Amino acid sequence: MSAAARFSFNHATAKFWDQREAVEACARAGAGIGLWREPLQEMGVEATAKLVQDAGVEVTSLCRAGFFTDPTAAALEDNRRAIDEAAAVGAPTLVLVSGGIPENGTIDSAREGVKEALAQLAPYALERGVTLAIEPLHPMFASDRCVVTTLAEALDLAAPFAPEAVGVVVDTYHIWWDPQVWQGIARAGREGRIASFQFADWITPLPAGVLTGRGQLGDGCIDFKRYLAEVDAAGFTGPIEVELFNDALWARPGAEVFQETRAAFERVVA
Amino acid sequence: MSAAARFSFNHATAKFWDQREAVEACARAGAGIGLWREPLQEMGVEATAKLVQDAGVEVTSLCRAGFFTDPTAAALEDNRRAIDEAAAVGAPTLVLVSGGIPENGTIDSAREGVKEALAQLAPYALERGVTLAIEPLHPMFASDRCVVTTLAEALDLAAPFAPEAVGVVVDTYHIWWDPQVWQGIARAGREGRIASFQFADWITPLPAGVLTGRGQLGDGCIDFKRYLAEVDAAGFTGPIEVELFNDALWARPGAEVFQETRAAFERVVA
Repeated sequence: MSAAARFSFNHATAKFWDQREAVEACARAGAGIGLWREPLQEMGVEATAKLVQDAGVEVTSLCRAGFFTDPTAAALEDNRRAIDEAAAVGAPTLVLVSGGIPENGTIDSAREGVKEALAQLAPYALERGVTLAIEPLHPMFASDRCVVTTLAEALDLAAPFAPEAVGVVVDTYHIWWDPQVWQGIARAGREGRIASFQFADWITPLPAGVLTGRGQLGDGCIDFKRYLAEVDAAGFTGPIEVELFNDALWARPGAEVFQETRAAFERVVA
Repeated sequence: MSAAARFSFNHATAKFWDQREAVEACARAGAGIGLWREPLQEMGVEATAKLVQDAGVEVTSLCRAGFFTDPTAAALEDNRRAIDEAAAVGAPTLVLVSGGIPENGTIDSAREGVKEALAQLAPYALERGVTLAIEPLHPMFASDRCVVTTLAEALDLAAPFAPEAVGVVVDTYHIWWDPQVWQGIARAGREGRIASFQFADWITPLPAGVLTGRGQLGDGCIDFKRYLAEVDAAGFTGPIEVELFNDALWARPGAEVFQETRAAFERVVA
């Protein structure tokens, strides 16, 4: 399959676009879609499942669960619900963002919490045919959003579990700076852990709060062809999601953002 | 020497404070000072050397050279000048921030540029008794300010040179998120490379541009006592500089910021 044919549109790239319209646009373009739980829940699990099935669109992932550095019963219950949602809509992968440092905790204690949560959730996910995908986020999010910061760390967390139960997300935006990134991708492939492959570009200056500064593909410093080649060489040939959190994109009509993003994707992989 | 007695005030913490007043405040408090090149050049190298000597203040480092990912003759010449300045004012250490990705370069080519620049500068520094201290910056600066992002990477860059010529900066603000940070500090000690030890706290939300969001000690999530213990265990017992880039601090009178910072330092190491 050509790289261009592997395009999947993550709904967060056009965050305020109606889920039905997004799915239908993906169907027309032959693209996959990465769904998000909030619009899914708003439409309903069954209705969303029917929507993607009727449209014939491949759901490449469901975003997002996790936030279990303090693995309370409520946090685990919400993650089990997310696994059920992923199974119901046919998403092979549930993306997990670990959460930040809990009140009165440290980054070390938070990392222990993640281990504990994964041990609780992995069997449940495996039974339902959903792979939990640990997403290392850029270290600028380490205190308030995700204590998992590198592919190596995510792979160490995944190691106790079967690859079908726990994998990792390779998202260019979060890992591009890592001097060990190529080794990390090769290891992720060797260990059969690449559960999701996502593109976003790195641009500066970063906006206040830094969450919504992800660049359109080609606007920043990331060498997507190199990532494509390294991930291919690591044996992953599945869908490539484009997920951009970007205030300027969010302010524009979803259909327009979809076309622009797809064109940008085709340019950077060509 | 008690931890409190190791306090050094980095001039950037009160960026707009007159250099003479800063040095005199450090003298009265028995503190060291980390100088910056701009105020030093403004006063003049000889006058600054006389100022610190007359005041009996220990210069713990000179900030900042580097910016040589594209190691042009001009960039190298400016670094040689910085080495001369450090030697003239008795700074044992010159802090180097590598610079970001040059026009038409990649992060990999930028890292090669750093290697080349260090090879050019190390002998010059060694002859003048100045240690070049490679500072890994937080990965949120990797594209536009510093392609060196971890202690491990900085130590690999330093490895070809004598420890007296090239060391590393251990700055809590930049490395606290790293899952390998304790191993990195232990290795830096073993290899005799800790040339500077700096404190700043990590707070969120980050401001736009992210440069000036460093927290006062104790306001964020960094466990300074643990850093102190690990760096002590690694065999470094030299000065500890507090360097905060923070718009709110910069807007206040330097003398007040100095007292507050010294008190915060004493609290977090007590």
